[in-house]
Amino acid sequence: MVYLNGEFLAKNQASISVMDRGFLFGDGVYEVIPVYKGSIFRLQEHLQRLQNSLDAIGIKNPHTNQQWQDIFSQLLTHDLAPNQSLYLQITRGADTQRKHSFESLTATVFVELNPLTPKSKHELNQGFSAITQADFRWQRCDIKATSLLANIMYSQQAKQNQVEEVILHRDQSITEGATSNVFIVKNNTLFTHPTGPNILSGITRDLVLESAIACQLPIQETAPTLDELLSADEVWISSSTREVMPITQVDSQPINQGKIGTHWSNVYDYYQSLKNA
Amino acid sequence: MVYLNGEFLAKNQASISVMDRGFLFGDGVYEVIPVYKGSIFRLQEHLQRLQNSLDAIGIKNPHTNQQWQDIFSQLLTHDLAPNQSLYLQITRGADTQRKHSFESLTATVFVELNPLTPKSKHELNQGFSAITQADFRWQRCDIKATSLLANIMYSQQAKQNQVEEVILHRDQSITEGATSNVFIVKNNTLFTHPTGPNILSGITRDLVLESAIACQLPIQETAPTLDELLSADEVWISSSTREVMPITQVDSQPINQGKIGTHWSNVYDYYQSLKNA
Repeated sequence: MVYLNGEFLAKNQASISVMDRGFLFGDGVYEVIPVYKGSIFRLQEHLQRLQNSLDAIGIKNPHTNQQWQDIFSQLLTHDLAPNQSLYLQITRGADTQRKHSFESLTATVFVELNPLTPKSKHELNQGFSAITQADFRWQRCDIKATSLLANIMYSQQAKQNQVEEVILHRDQSITEGATSNVFIVKNNTLFTHPTGPNILSGITRDLVLESAIACQLPIQETAPTLDELLSADEVWISSSTREVMPITQVDSQPINQGKIGTHWSNVYDYYQSLKNA
Repeated sequence: MVYLNGEFLAKNQASISVMDRGFLFGDGVYEVIPVYKGSIFRLQEHLQRLQNSLDAIGIKNPHTNQQWQDIFSQLLTHDLAPNQSLYLQITRGADTQRKHSFESLTATVFVELNPLTPKSKHELNQGFSAITQADFRWQRCDIKATSLLANIMYSQQAKQNQVEEVILHRDQSITEGATSNVFIVKNNTLFTHPTGPNILSGITRDLVLESAIACQLPIQETAPTLDELLSADEVWISSSTREVMPITQVDSQPINQGKIGTHWSNVYDYYQSLKNA
Protein backbone atom coordinates (compact mmCIF):
# COMPACT_ATOMS: atom_id res chain seq x y z
CA MET A 1 0.00 0.00 0.00
CA VAL A 2 1.41 3.39 -1.04
CA TYR A 3 0.02 6.92 -1.13
CA LEU A 4 -0.10 8.77 -4.45
CA ASN A 5 -1.88 12.10 -4.98
CA GLY A 6 -4.71 11.54 -2.52
CA GLU A 7 -5.17 7.80 -3.04
CA PHE A 8 -4.00 4.76 -1.13
CA LEU A 9 -3.27 1.99 -3.60
CA ALA A 10 -1.13 -1.08 -4.25
CA LYS A 11 2.45 -0.24 -5.19
CA ASN A 12 2.19 -1.96 -8.57
CA GLN A 13 -0.89 0.17 -9.37
CA ALA A 14 0.86 3.45 -8.58
CA SER A 15 1.86 5.21 -11.78
CA ILE A 16 2.59 8.73 -12.91
CA SER A 17 2.54 10.51 -16.24
CA VAL A 18 5.67 10.49 -18.42
CA MET A 19 5.20 14.28 -18.36
CA ASP A 20 5.83 14.38 -14.60
CA ARG A 21 8.76 16.72 -14.08
CA GLY A 22 10.12 14.27 -11.53
CA PHE A 23 10.60 11.78 -14.37
CA LEU A 24 11.74 14.27 -17.03
CA PHE A 25 14.03 16.47 -14.93
CA GLY A 26 14.56 15.05 -11.42
CA ASP A 27 12.56 18.14 -10.44
CA GLY A 28 11.53 17.15 -6.92
CA VAL A 29 12.54 16.73 -3.29
CA TYR A 30 12.20 13.93 -0.76
CA GLU A 31 12.53 12.87 2.86
CA VAL A 32 13.27 9.56 4.58
CA ILE A 33 11.87 9.40 8.11
CA PRO A 34 12.41 6.52 10.54
CA VAL A 35 9.46 5.06 12.42
CA TYR A 36 10.31 3.21 15.64
CA LYS A 37 7.64 1.07 17.29
CA GLY A 38 4.98 2.89 15.29
CA SER A 39 6.18 6.34 16.34
CA ILE A 40 7.58 8.75 13.73
CA PHE A 41 11.00 9.93 14.88
CA ARG A 42 11.77 13.65 14.73
CA LEU A 43 8.83 14.32 12.43
CA GLN A 44 8.82 18.10 12.93
CA GLU A 45 12.49 18.36 11.98
CA HIS A 46 11.92 16.31 8.81
CA LEU A 47 8.88 18.39 7.83
CA GLN A 48 10.89 21.58 8.41
CA ARG A 49 13.71 20.30 6.19
CA LEU A 50 11.15 19.29 3.56
CA GLN A 51 9.83 22.86 3.67
CA ASN A 52 13.38 24.21 3.24
CA SER A 53 13.95 21.99 0.20
CA LEU A 54 10.59 23.00 -1.33
CA ASP A 55 11.32 26.69 -0.75
CA ALA A 56 14.76 26.36 -2.36
CA ILE A 57 13.31 25.09 -5.63
CA GLY A 58 10.04 27.02 -5.58
CA ILE A 59 7.45 24.29 -5.03
CA LYS A 60 4.54 25.20 -2.77
CA ASN A 61 4.09 22.68 0.04
CA PRO A 62 0.94 20.78 -1.01
CA HIS A 63 0.01 19.86 2.59
CA THR A 64 -0.07 21.25 6.09
CA ASN A 65 1.91 19.41 8.74
CA GLN A 66 -1.36 17.98 10.04
CA GLN A 67 -2.27 16.66 6.59
CA TRP A 68 1.17 15.03 6.29
CA GLN A 69 0.67 13.38 9.66
CA ASP A 70 -2.74 12.08 8.59
CA ILE A 71 -1.29 10.54 5.43
CA PHE A 72 1.52 8.89 7.41
CA SER A 73 -0.89 7.61 10.08
CA GLN A 74 -3.15 6.03 7.49
CA LEU A 75 -0.21 4.29 5.83
CA LEU A 76 1.09 3.08 9.17
CA THR A 77 -2.24 1.47 10.09
CA HIS A 78 -1.82 -0.76 7.04
CA ASP A 79 1.64 -1.93 7.98
CA LEU A 80 2.34 -3.04 11.53
CA ALA A 81 6.06 -3.86 11.26
CA PRO A 82 7.80 -2.51 14.39
CA ASN A 83 10.39 -0.37 12.61
CA GLN A 84 9.85 1.29 9.26
CA SER A 85 11.16 4.00 7.06
CA LEU A 86 8.74 6.53 5.57
CA TYR A 87 9.75 7.69 2.11
CA LEU A 88 8.03 10.80 0.81
CA GLN A 89 8.64 12.52 -2.51
CA ILE A 90 7.16 15.69 -3.97
CA THR A 91 7.74 16.64 -7.59
CA ARG A 92 6.67 19.80 -9.37
CA GLY A 93 3.97 17.86 -11.22
CA ALA A 94 3.13 17.12 -14.85
CA ASP A 95 3.09 19.79 -17.54
CA THR A 96 1.57 19.35 -21.00
CA GLN A 97 4.93 19.79 -22.70
CA ARG A 98 8.58 19.36 -21.73
CA LYS A 99 10.28 22.69 -21.06
CA HIS A 100 12.89 23.57 -18.44
CA SER A 101 11.21 26.64 -16.96
CA PHE A 102 7.94 26.13 -15.13
CA GLU A 103 4.58 27.59 -14.30
CA SER A 104 2.47 26.71 -11.29
CA LEU A 105 1.49 23.02 -11.53
CA THR A 106 -0.24 20.53 -9.23
CA ALA A 107 2.58 18.85 -7.33
CA THR A 108 2.88 15.05 -7.35
CA VAL A 109 2.98 13.50 -3.87
CA PHE A 110 4.20 9.96 -3.33
CA VAL A 111 4.64 8.29 0.08
CA GLU A 112 5.55 4.72 0.90
CA LEU A 113 6.83 2.64 3.80
CA ASN A 114 9.92 0.48 3.64
CA PRO A 115 11.16 -2.04 6.18
CA LEU A 116 13.74 -0.59 8.56
CA THR A 117 16.11 -2.93 10.34
CA PRO A 118 18.76 -0.93 12.18
CA LYS A 119 21.87 -2.99 12.87
CA SER A 120 22.38 -4.12 16.46
CA LYS A 121 25.30 -2.81 18.48
CA HIS A 122 26.83 -6.25 18.18
CA GLU A 123 26.69 -6.03 14.39
CA LEU A 124 28.00 -2.46 14.37
CA ASN A 125 30.89 -3.47 16.60
CA GLN A 126 32.38 -5.37 13.67
CA GLY A 127 33.18 -2.05 11.97
CA PHE A 128 32.63 -1.05 8.35
CA SER A 129 34.74 -0.01 5.37
CA ALA A 130 34.63 3.03 3.12
CA ILE A 131 36.51 4.42 0.15
CA THR A 132 37.13 8.07 -0.68
CA GLN A 133 36.39 9.91 -3.92
CA ALA A 134 36.50 13.48 -5.18
CA ASP A 135 33.09 15.12 -4.73
CA PHE A 136 31.77 15.99 -8.19
CA ARG A 137 28.18 16.65 -7.07
CA TRP A 138 26.47 19.99 -7.48
CA GLN A 139 26.98 22.73 -4.91
CA ARG A 140 23.42 22.76 -3.58
CA CYS A 141 23.68 19.54 -1.59
CA ASP A 142 21.68 21.29 1.15
CA ILE A 143 18.58 20.67 -1.01
CA LYS A 144 17.32 17.10 -0.57
CA ALA A 145 16.55 16.77 -4.27
CA THR A 146 15.66 13.75 -6.39
CA SER A 147 18.28 14.71 -9.03
CA LEU A 148 20.48 12.02 -7.51
CA LEU A 149 22.51 10.57 -10.35
CA ALA A 150 25.87 11.54 -8.80
CA ASN A 151 24.87 9.81 -5.54
CA ILE A 152 23.74 6.75 -7.54
CA MET A 153 27.13 6.55 -9.24
CA TYR A 154 28.96 6.71 -5.90
CA SER A 155 26.62 4.18 -4.27
CA GLN A 156 27.25 1.78 -7.13
CA GLN A 157 31.00 2.26 -6.62
CA ALA A 158 30.53 1.40 -2.94
CA LYS A 159 28.69 -1.77 -3.94
CA GLN A 160 31.32 -2.74 -6.51
CA ASN A 161 34.07 -2.18 -3.95
CA GLN A 162 32.11 -4.08 -1.30
CA VAL A 163 32.26 -1.16 1.13
CA GLU A 164 29.53 0.52 3.14
CA GLU A 165 30.01 4.05 1.84
CA VAL A 166 31.94 6.42 -0.43
CA ILE A 167 33.29 9.37 1.58
CA LEU A 168 33.58 12.52 -0.54
CA HIS A 169 36.11 15.33 -0.47
CA ARG A 170 36.06 18.67 -2.21
CA ASP A 171 39.40 20.51 -2.43
CA GLN A 172 40.81 18.05 0.14
CA SER A 173 38.03 18.80 2.68
CA ILE A 174 35.72 15.95 3.65
CA THR A 175 32.15 17.00 2.79
CA GLU A 176 29.94 13.96 3.52
CA GLY A 177 29.20 10.45 2.27
CA ALA A 178 27.17 9.58 -0.84
CA THR A 179 24.18 8.85 1.42
CA SER A 180 25.38 9.91 4.90
CA ASN A 181 27.09 12.61 6.94
CA VAL A 182 30.68 11.98 8.07
CA PHE A 183 32.35 12.61 11.44
CA ILE A 184 35.84 12.04 12.77
CA VAL A 185 37.13 11.99 16.33
CA LYS A 186 40.65 13.34 16.84
CA ASN A 187 42.20 14.15 20.22
CA ASN A 188 38.84 13.66 21.94
CA THR A 189 37.02 16.20 19.74
CA LEU A 190 34.34 15.44 17.16
CA PHE A 191 34.78 17.14 13.78
CA THR A 192 32.27 17.37 10.93
CA HIS A 193 31.71 19.62 7.90
CA PRO A 194 29.66 22.71 8.82
CA THR A 195 26.17 23.05 7.35
CA GLY A 196 26.01 25.00 4.08
CA PRO A 197 25.55 24.37 0.37
CA ASN A 198 28.04 21.46 0.17
CA ILE A 199 26.31 19.05 2.55
CA LEU A 200 22.84 17.95 3.51
CA SER A 201 21.93 19.19 6.94
CA GLY A 202 21.11 15.73 8.26
CA ILE A 203 18.51 15.29 10.98
CA THR A 204 20.60 12.36 12.21
CA ARG A 205 23.72 14.57 11.97
CA ASP A 206 22.05 16.96 14.43
CA LEU A 207 21.13 14.05 16.70
CA VAL A 208 24.72 12.80 16.65
CA LEU A 209 25.99 16.25 17.62
CA GLU A 210 23.34 16.45 20.37
CA SER A 211 24.41 13.01 21.58
CA ALA A 212 28.10 13.97 21.55
CA ILE A 213 27.40 17.04 23.68
CA ALA A 214 25.41 14.89 26.11
CA CYS A 215 28.39 12.51 26.26
CA GLN A 216 30.73 15.44 26.97
CA LEU A 217 32.58 14.97 23.70
CA PRO A 218 33.43 18.47 22.41
CA ILE A 219 32.21 19.16 18.87
CA GLN A 220 33.76 21.34 16.20
CA GLU A 221 31.94 22.00 12.93
CA THR A 222 35.06 22.19 10.79
CA ALA A 223 35.59 19.96 7.78
CA PRO A 224 38.35 17.42 8.35
CA THR A 225 40.94 17.10 5.58
CA LEU A 226 41.49 13.84 3.76
CA ASP A 227 44.71 13.33 5.76
CA GLU A 228 42.90 13.99 9.04
CA LEU A 229 40.27 11.42 8.05
CA LEU A 230 42.88 8.76 7.40
CA SER A 231 44.74 9.49 10.66
CA ALA A 232 41.59 9.91 12.79
CA ASP A 233 41.03 8.10 16.08
CA GLU A 234 37.46 7.30 15.02
CA VAL A 235 35.40 7.74 11.84
CA TRP A 236 31.59 7.58 11.85
CA ILE A 237 28.87 7.98 9.28
CA SER A 238 25.25 8.84 10.04
CA SER A 239 21.91 8.68 8.24
CA SER A 240 18.33 8.19 9.35
CA THR A 241 18.36 4.53 8.32
CA ARG A 242 21.95 3.71 9.42
CA GLU A 243 21.82 5.84 12.60
CA VAL A 244 25.48 6.23 13.65
CA MET A 245 27.90 3.65 12.28
CA PRO A 246 31.62 3.15 12.95
CA ILE A 247 33.98 3.08 9.95
CA THR A 248 37.14 1.17 10.77
CA GLN A 249 38.77 1.04 7.35
CA VAL A 250 39.10 3.78 4.70
CA ASP A 251 40.72 3.17 1.32
CA SER A 252 41.89 -0.24 2.61
CA GLN A 253 43.76 1.40 5.53
CA PRO A 254 42.68 0.64 9.09
CA ILE A 255 41.48 3.59 11.20
CA ASN A 256 43.11 3.46 14.65
CA GLN A 257 44.30 -0.11 13.94
CA GLY A 258 40.74 -1.09 13.09
CA LYS A 259 39.49 -0.71 16.67
CA ILE A 260 35.99 0.51 17.49
CA GLY A 261 36.19 3.77 19.46
CA THR A 262 34.82 4.36 22.94
CA HIS A 263 33.32 7.71 21.88
CA TRP A 264 31.30 5.94 19.20
CA SER A 265 30.03 3.46 21.76
CA ASN A 266 28.90 6.23 24.12
CA VAL A 267 27.25 8.28 21.40
CA TYR A 268 25.55 5.19 19.96
CA ASP A 269 24.06 4.36 23.38
CA TYR A 270 22.84 7.92 23.88
CA TYR A 271 21.33 7.94 20.38
CA GLN A 272 19.40 4.75 21.25
CA SER A 273 18.07 6.42 24.37
CA LEU A 274 16.76 9.33 22.23
CA LYS A 275 14.95 6.86 19.99
CA ASN A 276 13.27 5.27 22.95
CA ALA A 277 12.52 8.53 24.77
CA MET B 1 1.21 9.91 -30.04
CA VAL B 2 4.30 8.95 -28.04
CA TYR B 3 6.46 5.83 -27.78
CA LEU B 4 6.82 4.11 -24.41
CA ASN B 5 8.46 0.72 -23.92
CA GLY B 6 7.44 -0.84 -27.21
CA GLU B 7 4.02 0.79 -27.55
CA PHE B 8 2.75 3.78 -29.48
CA LEU B 9 0.07 5.49 -27.43
CA ALA B 10 -1.59 8.82 -26.67
CA LYS B 11 0.52 11.08 -24.49
CA ASN B 12 -2.11 11.23 -21.74
CA GLN B 13 -2.14 7.41 -21.63
CA ALA B 14 1.63 7.12 -21.19
CA SER B 15 2.49 6.40 -17.59
CA ILE B 16 5.32 4.81 -15.68
CA SER B 17 5.66 3.18 -12.28
CA VAL B 18 6.47 5.34 -9.26
CA MET B 19 9.33 2.85 -8.79
CA ASP B 20 10.94 3.97 -12.06
CA ARG B 21 14.44 5.12 -11.18
CA GLY B 22 13.95 8.05 -13.53
CA PHE B 23 11.24 9.31 -11.18
CA LEU B 24 12.94 8.38 -7.90
CA PHE B 25 16.53 9.38 -8.71
CA GLY B 26 16.77 11.23 -12.05
CA ASP B 27 18.62 8.05 -13.07
CA GLY B 28 18.47 8.40 -16.85
CA VAL B 29 19.80 10.10 -19.95
CA TYR B 30 18.19 11.84 -22.91
CA GLU B 31 18.69 13.34 -26.35
CA VAL B 32 16.93 16.09 -28.29
CA ILE B 33 17.27 15.67 -32.07
CA PRO B 34 15.99 18.15 -34.65
CA VAL B 35 13.98 16.93 -37.62
CA TYR B 36 13.95 19.22 -40.65
CA LYS B 37 11.44 18.55 -43.42
CA GLY B 38 10.98 15.01 -42.11
CA SER B 39 14.69 14.25 -42.08
CA ILE B 40 16.49 13.57 -38.79
CA PHE B 41 19.49 15.90 -38.53
CA ARG B 42 22.83 14.38 -37.48
CA LEU B 43 21.18 11.24 -36.19
CA GLN B 44 24.40 9.19 -35.99
CA GLU B 45 26.08 11.87 -33.86
CA HIS B 46 23.13 11.98 -31.46
CA LEU B 47 23.01 8.20 -31.19
CA GLN B 48 26.75 8.14 -30.51
CA ARG B 49 26.38 10.73 -27.75
CA LEU B 50 23.45 8.75 -26.33
CA GLN B 51 25.72 5.71 -26.22
CA ASN B 52 28.42 7.74 -24.42
CA SER B 53 25.89 8.91 -21.80
CA LEU B 54 24.57 5.36 -21.30
CA ASP B 55 28.10 4.00 -20.95
CA ALA B 56 28.99 6.68 -18.40
CA ILE B 57 26.19 5.62 -16.05
CA GLY B 58 26.17 1.90 -16.82
CA ILE B 59 22.87 1.43 -18.67
CA LYS B 60 22.93 -1.03 -21.56
CA ASN B 61 21.58 0.52 -24.75
CA PRO B 62 18.17 -1.16 -25.15
CA HIS B 63 18.14 -0.76 -28.96
CA THR B 64 20.38 -0.98 -31.98
CA ASN B 65 20.71 2.14 -34.13
CA GLN B 66 18.40 0.51 -36.66
CA GLN B 67 15.76 -0.09 -33.97
CA TRP B 68 16.01 3.53 -32.86
CA GLN B 69 15.53 4.66 -36.45
CA ASP B 70 12.48 2.43 -36.81
CA ILE B 71 10.89 3.92 -33.68
CA PHE B 72 11.59 7.45 -34.88
CA SER B 73 10.24 6.71 -38.37
CA GLN B 74 7.02 5.30 -36.99
CA LEU B 75 6.49 8.36 -34.78
CA LEU B 76 7.25 10.67 -37.69
CA THR B 77 4.61 9.04 -39.92
CA HIS B 78 2.00 10.09 -37.33
CA ASP B 79 3.04 13.72 -37.29
CA LEU B 80 3.64 15.52 -40.53
CA ALA B 81 4.71 18.96 -39.21
CA PRO B 82 7.66 20.17 -41.32
CA ASN B 83 10.09 20.74 -38.44
CA GLN B 84 10.08 18.77 -35.23
CA SER B 85 12.21 17.94 -32.28
CA LEU B 86 12.59 14.30 -31.23
CA TYR B 87 12.88 13.85 -27.49
CA LEU B 88 14.15 10.49 -26.29
CA GLN B 89 14.75 9.43 -22.70
CA ILE B 90 16.11 6.20 -21.27
CA THR B 91 15.99 5.49 -17.55
CA ARG B 92 17.44 2.55 -15.69
CA GLY B 93 13.95 1.12 -15.18
CA ALA B 94 11.76 0.20 -12.22
CA ASP B 95 13.02 -1.80 -9.26
CA THR B 96 10.79 -3.40 -6.61
CA GLN B 97 12.23 -1.22 -3.86
CA ARG B 98 13.99 2.14 -3.65
CA LYS B 99 17.72 1.76 -3.14
CA HIS B 100 20.56 3.86 -4.55
CA SER B 101 22.72 1.05 -5.95
CA PHE B 102 21.30 -1.00 -8.79
CA GLU B 103 21.11 -4.39 -10.42
CA SER B 104 20.35 -5.06 -14.04
CA LEU B 105 16.81 -3.84 -14.80
CA THR B 106 14.72 -3.44 -17.94
CA ALA B 107 15.34 0.13 -19.10
CA THR B 108 12.40 2.49 -19.63
CA VAL B 109 12.33 4.05 -23.11
CA PHE B 110 10.24 7.13 -23.85
CA VAL B 111 10.22 9.01 -27.16
CA GLU B 112 8.04 11.90 -28.26
CA LEU B 113 7.92 14.61 -30.90
CA ASN B 114 7.62 18.29 -30.12
CA PRO B 115 7.02 21.16 -32.52
CA LEU B 116 10.22 22.87 -33.64
CA THR B 117 10.06 26.42 -34.93
CA PRO B 118 13.58 27.76 -35.39
CA LYS B 119 13.67 31.55 -35.39
CA SER B 120 14.17 33.24 -38.78
CA LYS B 121 17.32 35.24 -39.46
CA HIS B 122 15.17 38.35 -39.29
CA GLU B 123 14.05 37.43 -35.78
CA LEU B 124 17.57 36.48 -34.69
CA ASN B 125 18.91 39.80 -36.01
CA GLN B 126 17.14 41.56 -33.13
CA GLY B 127 19.67 40.06 -30.70
CA PHE B 128 19.03 38.38 -27.34
CA SER B 129 19.93 38.98 -23.72
CA ALA B 130 21.60 36.79 -21.11
CA ILE B 131 22.67 37.02 -17.49
CA THR B 132 25.66 35.31 -15.87
CA GLN B 133 25.72 33.11 -12.79
CA ALA B 134 28.25 30.97 -10.95
CA ASP B 135 28.07 27.38 -12.20
CA PHE B 136 26.99 25.19 -9.26
CA ARG B 137 26.13 22.14 -11.36
CA TRP B 138 27.87 18.80 -10.93
CA GLN B 139 31.18 18.13 -12.68
CA ARG B 140 29.90 15.48 -15.07
CA CYS B 141 28.06 17.83 -17.40
CA ASP B 142 29.41 15.72 -20.28
CA ILE B 143 26.69 13.18 -19.40
CA LYS B 144 23.33 14.24 -20.87
CA ALA B 145 21.49 13.14 -17.74
CA THR B 146 17.90 13.73 -16.59
CA SER B 147 19.11 14.85 -13.11
CA LEU B 148 18.51 18.41 -14.29
CA LEU B 149 17.39 20.35 -11.24
CA ALA B 150 20.31 22.81 -11.42
CA ASN B 151 19.48 23.56 -15.07
CA ILE B 152 15.81 24.00 -14.13
CA MET B 153 16.74 26.54 -11.47
CA TYR B 154 18.86 28.52 -13.94
CA SER B 155 16.20 28.36 -16.68
CA GLN B 156 13.64 29.69 -14.24
CA GLN B 157 16.02 32.55 -13.39
CA ALA B 158 16.29 33.33 -17.11
CA LYS B 159 12.52 33.41 -17.35
CA GLN B 160 12.15 35.63 -14.29
CA ASN B 161 14.79 38.00 -15.66
CA GLN B 162 13.16 37.92 -19.10
CA VAL B 163 16.39 36.87 -20.78
CA GLU B 164 17.08 34.07 -23.25
CA GLU B 165 19.74 32.25 -21.26
CA VAL B 166 21.87 32.08 -18.10
CA ILE B 167 25.57 31.87 -19.00
CA LEU B 168 27.57 29.97 -16.38
CA HIS B 169 31.10 30.47 -15.14
CA ARG B 170 33.21 28.24 -12.94
CA ASP B 171 36.25 29.87 -11.32
CA GLN B 172 35.79 32.83 -13.69
CA SER B 173 35.87 30.62 -16.81
CA ILE B 174 32.75 30.52 -18.97
CA THR B 175 31.58 26.90 -19.16
CA GLU B 176 28.28 26.93 -21.07
CA GLY B 177 24.66 28.08 -20.79
CA ALA B 178 21.96 26.38 -18.72
CA THR B 179 20.64 24.77 -21.92
CA SER B 180 23.22 25.75 -24.57
CA ASN B 181 26.91 26.01 -25.42
CA VAL B 182 28.52 29.46 -25.42
CA PHE B 183 30.95 31.06 -27.90
CA ILE B 184 32.62 34.43 -28.08
CA VAL B 185 34.38 36.15 -30.99
CA LYS B 186 37.35 38.33 -30.07
CA ASN B 187 39.86 39.73 -32.56
CA ASN B 188 38.39 37.59 -35.34
CA THR B 189 38.84 34.31 -33.44
CA LEU B 190 36.07 32.09 -32.06
CA PHE B 191 36.56 30.90 -28.47
CA THR B 192 34.59 28.23 -26.60
CA HIS B 193 35.16 25.99 -23.57
CA PRO B 194 36.95 22.76 -24.56
CA THR B 195 35.03 19.49 -24.26
CA GLY B 196 35.50 17.69 -20.93
CA PRO B 197 33.53 17.01 -17.76
CA ASN B 198 32.32 20.60 -17.28
CA ILE B 199 30.30 20.98 -20.48
CA LEU B 200 28.03 18.95 -22.69
CA SER B 201 29.72 18.12 -25.96
CA GLY B 202 26.94 19.64 -28.05
CA ILE B 203 26.21 18.27 -31.51
CA THR B 204 25.25 21.82 -32.48
CA ARG B 205 28.48 23.07 -30.86
CA ASP B 206 30.41 20.82 -33.28
CA LEU B 207 28.34 22.11 -36.20
CA VAL B 208 29.07 25.71 -35.19
CA LEU B 209 32.80 24.97 -35.07
CA GLU B 210 32.56 23.20 -38.45
CA SER B 211 30.69 26.23 -39.83
CA ALA B 212 33.27 28.66 -38.43
CA ILE B 213 36.09 26.76 -40.10
CA ALA B 214 34.17 26.76 -43.39
CA CYS B 215 33.76 30.56 -42.97
CA GLN B 216 37.51 30.93 -42.33
CA LEU B 217 36.96 32.10 -38.79
CA PRO B 218 39.80 30.60 -36.70
CA ILE B 219 38.61 28.61 -33.68
CA GLN B 220 40.27 28.15 -30.30
CA GLU B 221 38.83 25.73 -27.75
CA THR B 222 39.83 27.77 -24.71
CA ALA B 223 37.28 28.92 -22.13
CA PRO B 224 36.76 32.69 -22.21
CA THR B 225 36.88 34.45 -18.85
CA LEU B 226 33.90 36.39 -17.55
CA ASP B 227 35.71 39.65 -18.44
CA GLU B 228 36.42 38.40 -21.96
CA LEU B 229 32.74 37.53 -22.37
CA LEU B 230 31.65 41.02 -21.39
CA SER B 231 34.20 42.69 -23.67
CA ALA B 232 33.71 40.29 -26.61
CA ASP B 233 33.06 41.43 -30.17
CA GLU B 234 30.31 38.80 -30.49
CA VAL B 235 28.63 36.32 -28.13
CA TRP B 236 26.64 33.34 -29.42
CA ILE B 237 24.79 30.45 -27.84
CA SER B 238 23.96 27.16 -29.57
CA SER B 239 21.63 24.25 -29.02
CA SER B 240 19.84 21.82 -31.29
CA THR B 241 16.54 23.71 -30.98
CA ARG B 242 17.99 27.26 -30.98
CA GLU B 243 20.70 26.54 -33.60
CA VAL B 244 23.15 29.47 -33.31
CA MET B 245 21.80 32.62 -31.71
CA PRO B 246 23.43 36.04 -31.21
CA ILE B 247 23.55 37.45 -27.65
CA THR B 248 23.82 41.24 -27.72
CA GLN B 249 23.38 42.00 -24.05
CA VAL B 250 24.91 40.28 -20.99
CA ASP B 251 24.09 41.33 -17.43
CA SER B 252 22.34 44.42 -18.86
CA GLN B 253 25.52 45.52 -20.66
CA PRO B 254 25.53 45.70 -24.46
CA ILE B 255 28.02 43.46 -26.28
CA ASN B 256 29.84 45.45 -28.99
CA GLN B 257 27.30 48.29 -28.58
CA GLY B 258 24.49 45.79 -29.09
CA LYS B 259 25.34 45.22 -32.76
CA ILE B 260 24.89 41.83 -34.46
CA GLY B 261 28.28 40.53 -35.64
CA THR B 262 29.21 39.71 -39.22
CA HIS B 263 30.85 36.43 -38.14
CA TRP B 264 27.57 35.31 -36.60
CA SER B 265 25.77 36.13 -39.83
CA ASN B 266 28.25 34.11 -41.92
CA VAL B 267 28.20 31.12 -39.55
CA TYR B 268 24.40 31.23 -39.33
CA ASP B 269 24.12 31.09 -43.13
CA TYR B 270 26.56 28.20 -43.36
CA TYR B 271 24.70 26.33 -40.60
CA GLN B 272 21.47 26.72 -42.60
CA SER B 273 23.19 25.26 -45.65
CA LEU B 274 24.20 22.20 -43.57
CA LYS B 275 20.57 21.70 -42.51
CA ASN B 276 19.43 21.74 -46.10
CA ALA B 277 22.30 19.64 -47.45
